[in-house]
Amino acid sequence: MTPDEPPFAYDGLDRVLHEKARLGIMTSLMSHPKGLAFGDLKQLCGLTDGNLSRHLQVLEESGVVEISKTFEKKRPLTTCKLTASGRKRFLEYIEVLEQVVRDAATAAGPQTAGGRTKLKPRPA
Amino acid sequence: MTPDEPPFAYDGLDRVLHEKARLGIMTSLMSHPKGLAFGDLKQLCGLTDGNLSRHLQVLEESGVVEISKTFEKKRPLTTCKLTASGRKRFLEYIEVLEQVVRDAATAAGPQTAGGRTKLKPRPA
Repeated sequence: MTPDEPPFAYDGLDRVLHEKARLGIMTSLMSHPKGLAFGDLKQLCGLTDGNLSRHLQVLEESGVVEISKTFEKKRPLTTCKLTASGRKRFLEYIEVLEQVVRDAATAAGPQTAGGRTKLKPRPA
Repeated sequence: MTPDEPPFAYDGLDRVLHEKARLGIMTSLMSHPKGLAFGDLKQLCGLTDGNLSRHLQVLEESGVVEISKTFEKKRPLTTCKLTASGRKRFLEYIEVLEQVVRDAATAAGPQTAGGRTKLKPRPA
């Protein structure tokens, strides 16, 4: 951030990734570098078939995930995995998210210390 | 989270707050418990008048912020501040965001240690 930039603009919050369901998909795929079957991904994220399909399409069109269709025991199997650039992009996004959490913790201040939040401001 | 819940559903990611511009507004207002003038908030978040108005309306309708219109030296002054429940709701939201960051850090694993990300998995 340069000194002239608005401090709370969070421009790095990539809109493709900053969507509740897509955050779940990305975290699931990060945890499974070899990829996940459509059905497993659906369960991990608690999404319906239609919702998962729709979000995967957005992620695929953005080059963040790759989707392959194969057959296993004559049944079609859809597998999803992160691309290398998708992984990098997600890690960059997560760094901005960390900044949001730190800013909120700093803003919450000592009023919340020992209270209902576990937030810790960044050490000075 | 109960054991049966999908681990990556992130149901706590309140859709009213999980919007890039609104995150900036909320963090700005958290940092200024006495409230902020519309113009100052606009600068802190790097938003246009129209965008800021639109997002403030969503936040006001959800009971997260309160907006007051007064006059200062005969000029209209719009001031925005968080409500008590808005503050609580944002702190709860931020806890889920922390969980996302932790999950991503755990998923990223040792491959990123010392690498391009500063993410640290939660201590065991």
